[in-house]
Amino acid sequence: MSLDPKHVESQGIRPATVDVADAQSFASELADAARPIAMRYFRSALDVDHKADESPVTIADRTIEKMLRDMIASRFPAHGIYGEELGIKSGNGLTWVIDPIDGTKSFITGVPLFGTLIALIGGEGPLFGLIDIPATGERWVGAAGRTLFNGEPARTSPCSSLSAARFYTTSPETFVGEAMEAYRRITQGVALRRFGGDCYSYGLLASGHCDLVVEAGLQPYDYMALVPVIQQAGGAISDWDGNPLTLASDGRVVAAATPALHAEALALLTTG
Amino acid sequence: MSLDPKHVESQGIRPATVDVADAQSFASELADAARPIAMRYFRSALDVDHKADESPVTIADRTIEKMLRDMIASRFPAHGIYGEELGIKSGNGLTWVIDPIDGTKSFITGVPLFGTLIALIGGEGPLFGLIDIPATGERWVGAAGRTLFNGEPARTSPCSSLSAARFYTTSPETFVGEAMEAYRRITQGVALRRFGGDCYSYGLLASGHCDLVVEAGLQPYDYMALVPVIQQAGGAISDWDGNPLTLASDGRVVAAATPALHAEALALLTTG
Repeated sequence: MSLDPKHVESQGIRPATVDVADAQSFASELADAARPIAMRYFRSALDVDHKADESPVTIADRTIEKMLRDMIASRFPAHGIYGEELGIKSGNGLTWVIDPIDGTKSFITGVPLFGTLIALIGGEGPLFGLIDIPATGERWVGAAGRTLFNGEPARTSPCSSLSAARFYTTSPETFVGEAMEAYRRITQGVALRRFGGDCYSYGLLASGHCDLVVEAGLQPYDYMALVPVIQQAGGAISDWDGNPLTLASDGRVVAAATPALHAEALALLTTG
Repeated sequence: MSLDPKHVESQGIRPATVDVADAQSFASELADAARPIAMRYFRSALDVDHKADESPVTIADRTIEKMLRDMIASRFPAHGIYGEELGIKSGNGLTWVIDPIDGTKSFITGVPLFGTLIALIGGEGPLFGLIDIPATGERWVGAAGRTLFNGEPARTSPCSSLSAARFYTTSPETFVGEAMEAYRRITQGVALRRFGGDCYSYGLLASGHCDLVVEAGLQPYDYMALVPVIQQAGGAISDWDGNPLTLASDGRVVAAATPALHAEALALLTTG
């Protein structure tokens, strides 16, 4: 299976092609390589550094990203790379989007639910996405019409109404101003609210364990890998206006087990 | 090691004695027996029931508690039992306090950080406490001058100031009215805030991965087992007024890595 070059050509860009199955297999090699590095630093004493935006970042984060970038550059030298720690390397229209450690706060406080996120983005969006949880040995991969959880098909729940929905968000503190009002409209009607989670919440959603995740303030490396995992498991994911998530989205994400639940959530997020 | 009968006698109660090391070993047998039941129901489709207080409760919860009560009644027929699901059985002054599944919301949404809590309470407080995490195979036991994490000594961090503290609470929604004001005073000064966790946060605290946990609305079966785990690891735990936690406490808990941090947190919790 190759990326259809017609769409890319129509934009006047030189067509980039990739064997998606091959690239997906390579993504699993990347995640395999990241795991032991993450686990070497997990629950070890670390000097916690702070970036300009005050989010904590660890040695493990940078070590993993450096290694993954080297592996990608060696295998696919023409591809672009967009990572959390080391920025953007432009390429031929295919871009690897990677978050070496999503859930840094979990990581530095010993919670085993941090993840490594890997996606490959083409002209029409993500070709596949991978969520790997090193400490629990869990991996979700969304691609080619299905999402696999540790090699077995994953499906979202049939939940189609907000009143029955098990709701997740990483922190209510990420919602400010109008977003806080939208958050309140959503959460007052759900069956269950739960906090924490980062990328793990989206894996739970893909496997039918929760039904709705709403977040704000995410970066492309936080959400691009989630898109195929949710969609190929039967769920729906978009920004708060219902638009597909792209590298240029505003970081507001709503993911739901079914299109009906997604539509109900969107209506509340955009009213106000 | 036996419970000193003098204190109990001074209250005019017939002295109850127990070999604490033997009872502690039995508590590990209880946790071992609970694990496979918890895992049989974890991530399986469940009819979620609702109790009067609207907290979700599962078949696994009741099945485990019934089994643990039967095991305790068989081994220590004179002992009292206080469990989340099946209430209080009075006894001879020694009471087993058990929460078959702490973190029910985690459990029913597939998060592997729920726990089984077991404590034995005598006239002067808990003789030992045990936090078991079935899905990750982690166990903290606090007793007899030390806390063990999977058999190895656990120590709290040396963190002694709020500004350096990694803060955990299960949900900010548990703080209402004056408690919300106290919560704000505490959290605005910490280094890092993180949500979710239930009993797992206290295990992380005992092992030095986080520094401060503040909660409200807990029940005795939620907190009694935590007391020896935190204290024997070097930390401090009390209600928000600084009093020792007992079966009659009001459910507001503050646990800290060091007595100094505990004192700083208490000052903010009680000001207002």
